[in-house]
Amino acid sequence: MTVNLTTVLSSATRQVVISRDGPTVVIGERINPTGRKQVLAAFAAGDFEIARTDALAQVEAGAQMLDVNAGVPGADEPVMLRQVMQTVMAATDVPLCIDTADPVALAAALSFYKGKALVNSCNGEERSLKAVLPIVKEYGAAVIGLCMDDDGIPETPEARLAVAGKIIERAGKLGIPIEDVIIDPLALTMGADSHAGRIAMDTIELIIKEFDVNITMGASNISFGMPDRPYINSAFIAMAIHAGMTCPITNPLVTQVITAVLAADLAMGRDDYGMRWIKAFRKRQKAAGAAA
Amino acid sequence: MTVNLTTVLSSATRQVVISRDGPTVVIGERINPTGRKQVLAAFAAGDFEIARTDALAQVEAGAQMLDVNAGVPGADEPVMLRQVMQTVMAATDVPLCIDTADPVALAAALSFYKGKALVNSCNGEERSLKAVLPIVKEYGAAVIGLCMDDDGIPETPEARLAVAGKIIERAGKLGIPIEDVIIDPLALTMGADSHAGRIAMDTIELIIKEFDVNITMGASNISFGMPDRPYINSAFIAMAIHAGMTCPITNPLVTQVITAVLAADLAMGRDDYGMRWIKAFRKRQKAAGAAA
Repeated sequence: MTVNLTTVLSSATRQVVISRDGPTVVIGERINPTGRKQVLAAFAAGDFEIARTDALAQVEAGAQMLDVNAGVPGADEPVMLRQVMQTVMAATDVPLCIDTADPVALAAALSFYKGKALVNSCNGEERSLKAVLPIVKEYGAAVIGLCMDDDGIPETPEARLAVAGKIIERAGKLGIPIEDVIIDPLALTMGADSHAGRIAMDTIELIIKEFDVNITMGASNISFGMPDRPYINSAFIAMAIHAGMTCPITNPLVTQVITAVLAADLAMGRDDYGMRWIKAFRKRQKAAGAAA
Repeated sequence: MTVNLTTVLSSATRQVVISRDGPTVVIGERINPTGRKQVLAAFAAGDFEIARTDALAQVEAGAQMLDVNAGVPGADEPVMLRQVMQTVMAATDVPLCIDTADPVALAAALSFYKGKALVNSCNGEERSLKAVLPIVKEYGAAVIGLCMDDDGIPETPEARLAVAGKIIERAGKLGIPIEDVIIDPLALTMGADSHAGRIAMDTIELIIKEFDVNITMGASNISFGMPDRPYINSAFIAMAIHAGMTCPITNPLVTQVITAVLAADLAMGRDDYGMRWIKAFRKRQKAAGAAA
């Protein structure tokens, strides 16, 4: 297999490179009405100001890409996704991760997006592969492949690897290069199964050994139902980076989490002379000074 | 090679098991006059009360073993080490890690220690191997082997692996079983070389692949000279646990660090139902309540 696969994403004016040779790319998760009542209510009312402020705050906190989800029950998703994306693109030029389960909304979004977007997501279900991959190919995007298929989320790392392999193969048959498939091993909550974190990390290692693709993960749900979640999330994100995760989807506004990412990059030897670490420290100091 | 090597250490009344199947064993680092002026002054004045309070505080914070160092320049180390050890052993029954560069002090300490101690340390230098290993064998102790030799600290993980192999082989020739050799890959400060953390972690992985022994590490120095050290230390310790470290020597009184260890164990699937995590959370809550 090839080594050091690199995924290059872009907006009209900015490029982001994801690889295990470079710093971790944080994809900000907050522009998403799912589970955020305030966002849901605002979007439903046609008010997208919260998307603008969330975009700016996440980029300021260290996000290099932004996930954009506009899934409001009952709303016209193609229209609303476009409105949210345009709001975000007017506020910042970081590349977007277009997060929708609706192929029509996805195609519409990709048709006006300038640059190379990341699509969140397809999975190993036949229906998903057939609906999403041709659109990804048509618009020259990259895609996140979730390790689940028609039988659900496999329990073992080996079975999740098999799903990843299936997605990569099917993408390849359509002409989507392997470096444009980013795999999500799926981190379930440890509150339900205390081995959920370990299974996700072991899956990352298996997938990298076999395919060397970039790895993303929703790294916040792992601690659901547990106390002191930021401590768990920050340890887990550092460990997942050691395992090989390159572009977590997480909330950069949680200081412990974004700091764990920077510290993990430092420990992985991806922060020469600790310059990024020291710069972020000064920024925290300044923010603390301004707050006081 | 054998798998799942287990090191069993003990005091007269308590046993500690170190392995990658169980929770991380934290060895408390604080009973050490090196770099701690207050301890140095107290020990030099024959006052060991600070060893007693440091012992109790570290065990309360989660240390399952205590490193004991009595290296006061100009003092009679065999006598002072015995005094400090007896103070600690009167306060707590956790097994000790006897930390001395003086073979006479080491033999004297092991001769009165009840149980199976960990010796900190030997290294790959001929002089060290010849002085320390026969004493370790005579008293049936376990030993930490540092990845350095007559040529200094090797730069590459591969060269550090070779030193580890040499120590394990020489110990084996004297009849010290491989499971009683715990290797320290040596984590230098990232302030001097930003690859220091990565080299240490890669060394851990190589050593485990080859020998599957337990791994310790002084996990606090990595961040020397950097700002916001506890963030770096906590990310690094979680990543090193993912790499395979089983018994870090660190300061459990730093909440971020001991919490990172517990969170890492949770993420590694070594904390069934998160019971240890939840118990530690309640303890932190209670302590915060008492402080307020």
